[in-house]
Order: sequence, then structure tokens, then C-alpha cells
Amino acid sequence: MAFNLSGYLRGRTELVDAALDRWLPGEELLPSALHRAMRYSVFAGGKRLRPVLVLASGEAVGAAVERLLPAACAMEMIHTYSLIHDDLPAMDDDDFRRGRPTNHKVFGEANAILAGDALLTEAFRLLADPAANRGCDPAAVLRVIETIARCAGSQGMVGGQVVDMESEGKPVDFATLQYIHTRKTGALFLASIQAGAWLGGGSETQVAALTRYGETAGLAFQIADDILDIVGDQTALGKDVGSDQARGKVTYPALLGLSEARRHAEELRDLALAAIEPLGAGAEPLRAIARYIVDRTS
Amino acid sequence: MAFNLSGYLRGRTELVDAALDRWLPGEELLPSALHRAMRYSVFAGGKRLRPVLVLASGEAVGAAVERLLPAACAMEMIHTYSLIHDDLPAMDDDDFRRGRPTNHKVFGEANAILAGDALLTEAFRLLADPAANRGCDPAAVLRVIETIARCAGSQGMVGGQVVDMESEGKPVDFATLQYIHTRKTGALFLASIQAGAWLGGGSETQVAALTRYGETAGLAFQIADDILDIVGDQTALGKDVGSDQARGKVTYPALLGLSEARRHAEELRDLALAAIEPLGAGAEPLRAIARYIVDRTS
Repeated sequence: MAFNLSGYLRGRTELVDAALDRWLPGEELLPSALHRAMRYSVFAGGKRLRPVLVLASGEAVGAAVERLLPAACAMEMIHTYSLIHDDLPAMDDDDFRRGRPTNHKVFGEANAILAGDALLTEAFRLLADPAANRGCDPAAVLRVIETIARCAGSQGMVGGQVVDMESEGKPVDFATLQYIHTRKTGALFLASIQAGAWLGGGSETQVAALTRYGETAGLAFQIADDILDIVGDQTALGKDVGSDQARGKVTYPALLGLSEARRHAEELRDLALAAIEPLGAGAEPLRAIARYIVDRTS
Repeated sequence: MAFNLSGYLRGRTELVDAALDRWLPGEELLPSALHRAMRYSVFAGGKRLRPVLVLASGEAVGAAVERLLPAACAMEMIHTYSLIHDDLPAMDDDDFRRGRPTNHKVFGEANAILAGDALLTEAFRLLADPAANRGCDPAAVLRVIETIARCAGSQGMVGGQVVDMESEGKPVDFATLQYIHTRKTGALFLASIQAGAWLGGGSETQVAALTRYGETAGLAFQIADDILDIVGDQTALGKDVGSDQARGKVTYPALLGLSEARRHAEELRDLALAAIEPLGAGAEPLRAIARYIVDRTS
């Protein structure tokens, strides 16, 4: 029987949404405006890809979902903070995201900067929260915190954003494109996979297999995103088609051509599937996700 | 023999500066512009108060300086990120800090936002770094991470900044003033003290005494800062005297009058000294710091 990915995604997304709502400070707490701004962007209709990756990776090594939820929610908070800051006037200057006004359009620039700062900080608080981590090995939790911070920091996601901005409107070679993509999107993708594997108590061999999956599927995801920016359906996508091109951003299709970019994404998907072949039935969600990433239209 | 505070501060500051230089990514690493921006503000002549508090608190419970250095440096990175973001045009819009152009004036707004983001992230990476933490109890390290994140987040430092901005140019009552000060400055002050106490292996009684010290001395520090903004020496201060008043910021002297504010700061200093009385000779640096905080002129 084929694995029911949409059922899996729905179930896991509901768990993540409920946990985010439980752990994010409520609007009744001071300062309300700040907590409202944080929640506005966290609950703005994101696909929860990174949290689902944490859960699917941990489940692939046999872990219970409960102990994976803090890291899953932390990844979504970090992802959301990065979107809020990327959208700022000084950065990409976007007025809309997923069809809704961006954080700074609603709450003002200062509050948007601070809401991003607070989400990033709250992610690490939650990762280290003793109540949320009951029963977890403290050394494994520290390893997860270090990995997530490394992947999100100056040589990971933030570094990718800096080089992406520096490259706008300039001729960019393949090495630079790969630098940007492995960091801007790939780093959090990989961190999610590794966090799940470690918190789930995976063996060294299992963690290595999942790491390979995270590296290849993460890059495939970004290439597919680039392709969608050209051929995608604007309504399904929730942003302007061709917006990367319009702002002179370098993309895989622009550099390799559309069909070669597609071939590359499919090759990476197959490498990802091969990497986790030994993990058996528990890795079925990760397999379905790798296929979906490359075949999706939005 | 009187304790030599300036000798102590010089020695500890040198240790912290060397460790920051060792742990912050170098400018030879990509993206160089980002790492240059991070280092520009970290090495902009700060007094290293928070790192020194971590060290002095840990030393008060008998710990070796080595195991306290990661947390000490992390506190300085978090403090520096908060200054970079506070100076942004959307926030306080400051062109100078400590007599040098602010981060965004040198590197541009986008890079300043990202340099702050990267410093905050790097602080948590360093706190969880297995090599830097060799020999530390993982559970104690997690407790420190959780405390620092809580004190720096939406209900700590960032929350204080939000309420401070909301209050500019408005009539503010004493409760709001205390809310702002205990969070904007007090929270990181307290987190530094608690981080040192826990990493140093302090007993519950010792941690409680140091917590009381952190709460009272932290507030005294902020009140003294407010007073200095009115009566201070502009050269020694490195910022415009009267700048709080000029932008309509609420301060203790504005609300209580200068002499009552001074009396309040002295009272808090005495409470801080009383709290750590039982800690004996090891707490001598903390005592000298509490006195210095209230008596300093810059």
C-alpha cells in the first residue's frame, strides 16, 4: 500500500501547530504587541517543512514524537525569524508573504526586527527547556543546540543570506550559487534532519545516512523552489512568479537551464533515497517527502 | 589590604578579549564582510561588564576561570547584538556609539541586522560547544542556556526594549519604569551572575544569594546609568549627556528626582552587598563591582 503523505503531513502539522501555540508566549503576556507580532508570522500559513523533517527523521530511527517536538518547534521559530528579517525594507523589502502583509507592514519595522530577535532567542530557550526535554539525554540536547546554531549562523543560513544579497544583479558562478543554496535553505534543512536523528537516539550509521539525506534532499528542495519561481502557479505559490528573476537573483535554472536544473534535482532526490534505503519502513515518510519536494508544483 | 578592582578588571577583560578573538569566526572565513561587521562591534571598546560578572560570580563559588569563559563570551555577544539592533534607524537611530560610527553606518543596514542575528546565534553555539565545555556538567550547561535565553528574550531584554520604545515621549509610571529597567539591562546582568554560579557548581544557597545580588546590583547599575546621563562627563561617557532626556526617555532621576534616585541606587548596592556577605573572600570582586557601579562617573 502506498504511503499516505498528505495524511502524514496533516497529522504532524497539527501536532506542531498545537505545540507552537502551547510554547509561544501568549498575547496576554507583556509586551502583548511583541507576542502578537511573533505569533502573526509563526501562524501565517507556513508548510511546517522543517518541523516535519525533525519528526520524520526522529521517527525513522524509532523515536516517539513527543521528545522531538521542542526541536521541531524551535526550527519553525528560527525559520520564521529569518523570513521576518529577510522581508525588511533594508533587505528584500517585501510587502507580502503567502498572500498576507509582511510583519513590518503590520507592526512596523522596529517591532518586526525585535519579533525576529525574540523568535530566534525563544527557539534556543525551548531547545534547552528542562520541562520540554524531560527524559532526553542532556549531552544529545547540547549537540542538537550546537548543530542548529552552527547551521543558522554566520557560516550557515545568515552567511547564505549575506552572500545572496552581495550577489544580486552580479554575474555569479556555480560555486557561489551552491554556497548560497547550501547555506540559505540547505543548512536549516540539514539541521532539522540531524536534530531528529540525535534526539531520536539514532546510531552513528543511522545519523550518517540521514545526514546524507539532508544534504541531498535539501539542495533538491532549493532547486525545485527556483524552478517553481519560473514555471509555478502564482496562486498556489503565494508569491509572484518570476520574482527571483525580476530582482536579478541567481538561480539554478538561470545558470543551468530549466531541463538541466530539473535533471539535477531528480538526481539529488535519487541520492537522498539511496542514502536512507537501509533505514527500512520507518523512513517511509522521508522517502515520500523527498519525492514530493521534487515533484511538487507549489 | 583593599581589593584592587582595576587590576582585577584589567586581567579579566584581557582573558575575555582573547577568548572572544579565538571563538569569533575570523575575517578570513566567508562571508568576510559579515565576520568583519560582527568583530567591529564586539571589539568597539566595551567595558565587558557582563563577561566579568560571569567570571566574578563563578569565582565567588570557587570555579576555575576556564570553564566560565564560553558563557562570559556568549553574554558579550548577546549584549553586542542588542546594541547593534538598538542603534538601527528603525529603533534609536544612533550614528555613534562609544565615539565610533555605529555598525549600520559602516556596513549598511542589512549587514548590521544580519551581524546582530549572527552574534546572537553564535552566542548559543558557543554555549553548547562541546570542545569549549569540556568537563562541564551537560545538565548545568542546559540550565545556563535556558536562563540566558529567557533573560534575553521576549519577556526579558527584547521585551524591555519594546516597552521602552512604546513609552517614548509618553507619561510613564514607576511600575513601567521598573519593568523596562529590570528587563532591558537587569535581565542580562542577572543572567550573567546566574550563569557563573551554575557553571561554577554553586550550591542552591549560593545561587540564591548570587541571584539576589544580580537583581539588586543590576537595578543599581541602570539607575546609576540614568544619573550619569544627566550629570556625567561627556568624554568619559562616550555619548551625549542628556541624550535620554532629549529623546523623551523615562529615567529614574526624571521620575524620582536626582537625589532620591541616588539614594535608591545606594540602597540597592547595600542590599547586593548584604546578599553575598556569606560568600566570604571569594566574592570580593563582586563587592568591589557593586560599589564601583554606584560610585562611577562614566
